[in-house]
Amino acid sequence: MHIAVDAMGGDRAPAAIVAGAVAAARHLRFGLLLVGRSEAIEAELERARGLSRLDVRTVNAPDVVDMAEPASAVRRKPGSSLRVAADLVASGEAAAMFSAGHTGAVVLTAHAAFGMIDGIERPALATTIPTRTGHAILIDSGANLCCRPQHLVQFGAMGVTLARVGLGIAGPRIGLLAIGEEETKGLELAREAHQRLKRSGLPFIGNLEATRMYAGDAEVILCDGHTGNLALKVSESLVDALEGLFVREMRRSLKARAGLLLSKTALLRLRKRVDYAEQGGAPLLGLRKICVVGHGRSSAKAVRNAVALAHRLAEGNLVGALESELKMAAV
Amino acid sequence: MHIAVDAMGGDRAPAAIVAGAVAAARHLRFGLLLVGRSEAIEAELERARGLSRLDVRTVNAPDVVDMAEPASAVRRKPGSSLRVAADLVASGEAAAMFSAGHTGAVVLTAHAAFGMIDGIERPALATTIPTRTGHAILIDSGANLCCRPQHLVQFGAMGVTLARVGLGIAGPRIGLLAIGEEETKGLELAREAHQRLKRSGLPFIGNLEATRMYAGDAEVILCDGHTGNLALKVSESLVDALEGLFVREMRRSLKARAGLLLSKTALLRLRKRVDYAEQGGAPLLGLRKICVVGHGRSSAKAVRNAVALAHRLAEGNLVGALESELKMAAV
Repeated sequence: MHIAVDAMGGDRAPAAIVAGAVAAARHLRFGLLLVGRSEAIEAELERARGLSRLDVRTVNAPDVVDMAEPASAVRRKPGSSLRVAADLVASGEAAAMFSAGHTGAVVLTAHAAFGMIDGIERPALATTIPTRTGHAILIDSGANLCCRPQHLVQFGAMGVTLARVGLGIAGPRIGLLAIGEEETKGLELAREAHQRLKRSGLPFIGNLEATRMYAGDAEVILCDGHTGNLALKVSESLVDALEGLFVREMRRSLKARAGLLLSKTALLRLRKRVDYAEQGGAPLLGLRKICVVGHGRSSAKAVRNAVALAHRLAEGNLVGALESELKMAAV
Repeated sequence: MHIAVDAMGGDRAPAAIVAGAVAAARHLRFGLLLVGRSEAIEAELERARGLSRLDVRTVNAPDVVDMAEPASAVRRKPGSSLRVAADLVASGEAAAMFSAGHTGAVVLTAHAAFGMIDGIERPALATTIPTRTGHAILIDSGANLCCRPQHLVQFGAMGVTLARVGLGIAGPRIGLLAIGEEETKGLELAREAHQRLKRSGLPFIGNLEATRMYAGDAEVILCDGHTGNLALKVSESLVDALEGLFVREMRRSLKARAGLLLSKTALLRLRKRVDYAEQGGAPLLGLRKICVVGHGRSSAKAVRNAVALAHRLAEGNLVGALESELKMAAV
């Protein structure tokens, strides 16, 4: 099995992308198709160890979609690393793809190249977040700025399958992210989605007030992509700031200062656990092929985790599981 | 000067409300009009100390707007503590009001009772948040689920005045909360507001990507009320969860465990600093009178801070400052 990797997407591309992808391939023994400017990729590969026993190939793609361009720029760039990577998956040469590039462009490209599963109208990003009691899947975390109520129901069905098949969570519960617990609160989208979810037969527990997002009340948290993306980004910012504030608070007393030294490892481990950039990628659900999207700031370690996830979801046949579950649920 | 306090609003009403309001009045030497069910309020007052030297009066109001009711329920309840408190301010008997009740009902009531300042079309909640470098004002943090671009410009003008007059921040900068740094990213509201802010003459620094919300790049952070409310609630949830996760991480090693004990005070102080429920209230800006809205979970300490804020803003004539600045800016 080969995974196609967009080696040019992300703030630290191609260095972090190539290093991370090779690490995953070495660990899990799968093949890689590294897509992008051959020279740049080969320069990075020269630094990698133990390549001789791996099936790593470079696929040349001269263009790159820049972060400042509109997502639609990808349509004018058939030679972009993103398009070439997606084509490799569409043609069956690769079993899944990964990109840490322009999220909007990845969604457009993957959508056009792979098509949708029956019963799903829009692809959605599913990001795993830590909670007080374990993990939850936030869906949609950024693929669709605007959604309709029925899209949220479809996201719910996919989230439940991903939680079971991808994360091994038995009996996942769905919560609808909202600014109030009551059904009457929030925007029209949330109110209408609430009614549809109630009737859907899915394991829906009702509105999940945003004050409980990380509490562990639900394993699948539904929202539109703008809301989900904002929630993740605000969280990222808060973790950054809290770390600074915590260190400052600790420095105020000598006793606490000693505590800081002793708790440094815990702080570091916690950071890694909640850091969106460290956690690897989010699968883009609803497509006929596996596409994992990475954070723009992805480190080599995050890329390793994301590429490993793409491999795991392809090997576990997530698309097949989604198709059969959706057929049964008939959402 | 008297402050009218809705003694019945909030999860811990009337106990926490009465205790907090009395503490503020005792500390800052102003009068109180405690509005609600007389018997319940007087029972709480019996527990308070040093009342004899204070001007604390009870104003009877038999009704309460319940959190589960729609905001408009307040229209059918002229005898609610909220309406009676607002009327005391409208008639000039009190200089400002505080309520930790149903936010939507507070906004409706204050809007109807006080009217708007010239040049402002919608009242907006302005919540102070901690940042890496100090504080920032998030506006609107929950008064308007939907906004138009010109509303955000008006909120910006008010935020700048509040930052200067209320928080003593010299040269506050305005950032527009968005899911991307680029002007082209985000929803139509954000794109159009961005263009208007650029032309407004206000100290606008551009989009503030949500990953930088707590970074200290801007002292006035603009968004619609749904986005702002969600951002605060997600933050609250994350702080809750992080505390739990941090303690769990620390317990994993003996060394870190010692660190936890030593850093307990720092953790506690940090929690208070970022805890929305601890921080007191948010002024509802744009009205001809001062109204401070408290978090539903307000503790006595939070109420004390919020009532003190209402007093400070009334004494500092925030409404006059807003009116004259808006006349000059002609937003």
